[in-house]
Amino acid sequence: MPRFRMRVEYDGTSYVGWQSQENGHSVQAALQKAILSLTGETVSVRGAGRTDSGVHARGQVVHADLSRDWQPFKLRNALNAHLMMANEKVAVIDVMQVDETFDARFSAIKRHYLYRIISRPSPLAIEAGQAWWVSKTLDHEAMHAAAQTLVGHHDFTTFRSVHCQAKSPMRTLDRLDVTRHGDLIEIRATAQSFLHNQIRSFAGTLKLAGEGKMTPDDVRAALEARDRKACGPVAPPQGLYFMQVDYPGDAEPAT
Amino acid sequence: MPRFRMRVEYDGTSYVGWQSQENGHSVQAALQKAILSLTGETVSVRGAGRTDSGVHARGQVVHADLSRDWQPFKLRNALNAHLMMANEKVAVIDVMQVDETFDARFSAIKRHYLYRIISRPSPLAIEAGQAWWVSKTLDHEAMHAAAQTLVGHHDFTTFRSVHCQAKSPMRTLDRLDVTRHGDLIEIRATAQSFLHNQIRSFAGTLKLAGEGKMTPDDVRAALEARDRKACGPVAPPQGLYFMQVDYPGDAEPAT
Repeated sequence: MPRFRMRVEYDGTSYVGWQSQENGHSVQAALQKAILSLTGETVSVRGAGRTDSGVHARGQVVHADLSRDWQPFKLRNALNAHLMMANEKVAVIDVMQVDETFDARFSAIKRHYLYRIISRPSPLAIEAGQAWWVSKTLDHEAMHAAAQTLVGHHDFTTFRSVHCQAKSPMRTLDRLDVTRHGDLIEIRATAQSFLHNQIRSFAGTLKLAGEGKMTPDDVRAALEARDRKACGPVAPPQGLYFMQVDYPGDAEPAT
Repeated sequence: MPRFRMRVEYDGTSYVGWQSQENGHSVQAALQKAILSLTGETVSVRGAGRTDSGVHARGQVVHADLSRDWQPFKLRNALNAHLMMANEKVAVIDVMQVDETFDARFSAIKRHYLYRIISRPSPLAIEAGQAWWVSKTLDHEAMHAAAQTLVGHHDFTTFRSVHCQAKSPMRTLDRLDVTRHGDLIEIRATAQSFLHNQIRSFAGTLKLAGEGKMTPDDVRAALEARDRKACGPVAPPQGLYFMQVDYPGDAEPAT
């Protein structure tokens, strides 16, 4: 059975999240339904990361095994046609055939996320559901300084959900950069893998740093406390975007 | 009665357009309702431009006369609270008090619009309703060259809706620039005023130039034909954004 790797974009607003659940429609189910209606095959689509309800993706990567040797661009176009007909907010950006050792989840060497904050006095009309609206002015340089205390190999117990199922709270955070473009503040995070709610926990804590309520030393102390209660309020899902996944042998690993 | 000038952002998707109509909810009605629920006053809000259903604004400018001397930031916050309670996709970005000679429509000296095209093989999941999806590759340099034939003082009969109510088809187009950022193509248009559907008519025609179906000379010939039938298919509303209006005495007129 040929295996296909696909890069997928979605607006997570109206989904229960990436993973199929009993209580609503998931992105995974939307893709599996599109494959079923195209090929008649009931397949399991595996994603590189599980995103929560409301979280978006520009570069989720999935794999699926199909019986036919599809030309990649034809598979992309046919799946998009079925997704559009079903009125899904999911699009397949590109497709490539890969060998059976490729696994969207386990082969991933880096995952890249973006968290978007719009900091301005007025609520969001156009970007409602696509960013976290913060009415206060945030000092993005203070946020960036605080973020640097989190980079590296640490026990991230403070910054993971109590529902996180990972065996270990140890992770290596490669990058946590905060930049500003007008009233848009972007937090870019890279690691091989993240804990559940880790980036939204970072964003909520960095927002406090941006308001002057936490210094970089306070954020380091919160990390070292290894205590969920030391975390700032978790930032809402609509600011989070799963941007890109890197695999061994990819031509241009992201920086 | 103190007069207030307000800059307004909206997502036009679910509105019949700027102007109040019998067949549905308008942005104008949303603002008038917010003012009524805040102040008890039934006022008429005048906008700098009438946008069609589906067209967005980041910088529509309106004026309204209220009985009270509101502090501008308090009026902004109170109106936004009422707009959010009513679940409107409209936000007041800023407010200033102006003298009674100011008229949002008639005092305007320049209007700035942006038309966004996303040109890629896959349909839009995140930006659905916020840009025109064109699956073909477009040559933005060819689009820009064609656009330059339209700049200047011309009879724009070719590029206005048959329903346009302006007395004259003569307009002076100051700017029509086409740039690319990844798969996003931006068309930026500036003039003192525009005809009905003028920018969407430009965008539809420039798309043909980007596909190689019209040369700059063809676009010039379409303009000179002064014939609506010479226009390319009108581009859809969701790509259009009313960005900014300039008035005499503004500190920073846009360039």
